[in-house]
Amino acid sequence: MIDFPYITEICSSTSSKIVMLVVDGLGGLPHPDTGKSELETAETPNLDRLAAESACGLTTPVAPGITPGSGPGHLALFGYDPVKYMIGRGALEAIGIGVELRKGEVATRGNFCTVDDSGLLVDRRAGRIPTSESTPLVEMLDGIEVPNVDISVYPVSDHRFVLVLSSDGLDERVRETDPQLVGVPPLEAEAVVPEAEKTAEIVRSFAKLAREVLRERSSANMMLLRGFSALPDIPDMGRTYSLNPACIAAYPMYRGLAHLVGMKVIPTGGTFDHELDTLEKSFHEHDFFFLHYKPADAAGEDGDFEGKVETLERLDARIPRLLELDIDTLVVAGDHSTPSVMGSHSWHPVPLMVKSSIYVGDGAGGFNERACASGSIGRIQAVNIMLIALANAGKLQKFGP
Amino acid sequence: MIDFPYITEICSSTSSKIVMLVVDGLGGLPHPDTGKSELETAETPNLDRLAAESACGLTTPVAPGITPGSGPGHLALFGYDPVKYMIGRGALEAIGIGVELRKGEVATRGNFCTVDDSGLLVDRRAGRIPTSESTPLVEMLDGIEVPNVDISVYPVSDHRFVLVLSSDGLDERVRETDPQLVGVPPLEAEAVVPEAEKTAEIVRSFAKLAREVLRERSSANMMLLRGFSALPDIPDMGRTYSLNPACIAAYPMYRGLAHLVGMKVIPTGGTFDHELDTLEKSFHEHDFFFLHYKPADAAGEDGDFEGKVETLERLDARIPRLLELDIDTLVVAGDHSTPSVMGSHSWHPVPLMVKSSIYVGDGAGGFNERACASGSIGRIQAVNIMLIALANAGKLQKFGP
Repeated sequence: MIDFPYITEICSSTSSKIVMLVVDGLGGLPHPDTGKSELETAETPNLDRLAAESACGLTTPVAPGITPGSGPGHLALFGYDPVKYMIGRGALEAIGIGVELRKGEVATRGNFCTVDDSGLLVDRRAGRIPTSESTPLVEMLDGIEVPNVDISVYPVSDHRFVLVLSSDGLDERVRETDPQLVGVPPLEAEAVVPEAEKTAEIVRSFAKLAREVLRERSSANMMLLRGFSALPDIPDMGRTYSLNPACIAAYPMYRGLAHLVGMKVIPTGGTFDHELDTLEKSFHEHDFFFLHYKPADAAGEDGDFEGKVETLERLDARIPRLLELDIDTLVVAGDHSTPSVMGSHSWHPVPLMVKSSIYVGDGAGGFNERACASGSIGRIQAVNIMLIALANAGKLQKFGP
Repeated sequence: MIDFPYITEICSSTSSKIVMLVVDGLGGLPHPDTGKSELETAETPNLDRLAAESACGLTTPVAPGITPGSGPGHLALFGYDPVKYMIGRGALEAIGIGVELRKGEVATRGNFCTVDDSGLLVDRRAGRIPTSESTPLVEMLDGIEVPNVDISVYPVSDHRFVLVLSSDGLDERVRETDPQLVGVPPLEAEAVVPEAEKTAEIVRSFAKLAREVLRERSSANMMLLRGFSALPDIPDMGRTYSLNPACIAAYPMYRGLAHLVGMKVIPTGGTFDHELDTLEKSFHEHDFFFLHYKPADAAGEDGDFEGKVETLERLDARIPRLLELDIDTLVVAGDHSTPSVMGSHSWHPVPLMVKSSIYVGDGAGGFNERACASGSIGRIQAVNIMLIALANAGKLQKFGP
């Protein structure tokens, strides 16, 4: 959690309600032609009014210059030091497709590949076969049995899948089997530390059997594994903060991350309107809601400046509906910036606003990167947002006598 | 290095080029008569235009209120936590005069003193004898031989010199021999920990022999030693960041610091124009250049406000020449402030600007303390500048899945 050792001692349960609206990829950069960022370009009268009445600031997701993936970006928002609580690729891929990974299980990314008659790699991605073709192959792998371990294989998309091992005494410190080049055979899974020998042995058995069940095929006749990982030993968010936290997110990845930290994941539909329906219905049942808005990030990743502007305007139109709820502390934050001009996640500071009854607001001229830079919260690490939220909601006691 | 354990994993080598122009003592304070700092007073149209097109901010060299010496100031710029990687006085003095100190060697500052016939200190600095007088004495000390150790003594200036011991099993934890008062004999070198006993024994032998070779003189007839130190165990900058870094600096101290972190030190002449010649010639050979500009600090240390203004204007006139190179990311930073009104290094935040192709700029009204305070980079620790530089140059991969 945040680097404040007394956090649990000073948190107390109250009836006040916090909603943390996470706008994925919220921050941006100015368009070269206009000098205005996506947030500055978008017509967002509701967000702007809210900013004027809120405490505003900018958040650094991990550290200056560090671009976070979705995992570190969200863990920081929930108050977990994203460097300390690192989620491996395999575990996040499993979480991302909705697998409820459990403590002690080892997950890894896999993909079909093609080998020749001698077992040498010809195509490390099996021509990126479509999901329709790979799904029956995934089912074949899922049927493989190795003694003393439960093996589950889940399709992801195209040539990719996730393998989850469930047994006692597993250890994720196993080397990947992808040699990263063709003309050589796949690598044997090797334990990096002696504790992982059992896991490596299971993976070798699985690889051998996988080759057998796929042998008759001329392509996609073998598979490679990489990113062995287990869940980090992560404290429960509810117990840490004396909260009863819930997640409302349309995308599996974010539901998975919320589940990981112990939030109740409330089933919802595929759009933000569905999420708002769900929030309204379940509003009396929890005191903390993580509400996720995905479209801004997606448009930013596509390098679609105008598209991202539109997603922000669509979000803005839903703000009045959100404000009809009796929210004590509304946090609007982002997990990272996704500037359309870069077409990717980035390291740039992310706008933040916190609206609560104890505050008349900074009077910021809008909800955007420049206006929030002069807000009363200043520049903070994203891992500290939870503290600000809890404090505004009256859930944090005084520290020290 | 910076407190980010995955730094080496997320760095990748690319063809993009970073130039870090370090303006020594860059920051200043307002002149009481005008209310304007040196940077605000100087006519610097080129730096100001660059600032408008750059991401700007202010850097804290070590911590608020902490005034760094040249060692910590530069180590932070290169991404090394200046508190963790502390260079002792003796080692820095050796580096400062161009000695390529090696791992395991112990260096210490020394100075000639005067003792009476009973060996009691009369003058701890031997009347600050001029370099011309001390140099032959240094040669006498350099001729001293002690078994099982190589002894080198180098002149610094006036009554001061540097002693370097080279042997196996040395340890710098030896107490200084200067009693800090007169009327008593110089102290015997004592080991602070048992591991340093061998080193202390060598120093005692050296002191005894030094007294013998200087005995015939009426003044400067003995010497005192203080600041025993060895090089810190410092990671290689090139390996850490996947860079091929080079240093272009006219002054030995900065070349020494760059050498210490593993930069290639390119020979250059004594002025900034020589440095620019060297940069142009070697530009295709490296992907990171530390380019050092000394005059601003020197004028600030002299308390010469107008002089510092002039050095900044002279620097400004060279900026167009610098910009003719195909630099992907240009960082203009300072190792610390040297306000002329103080006549010394200080703790005040230092202006920073980072110009890269992915960014249209903050539109800052100039390159100075006040304008940079509202820049998009905000206030960062100087140790994070390298992350910002690497990110802007496209050399940092995403952290976490």
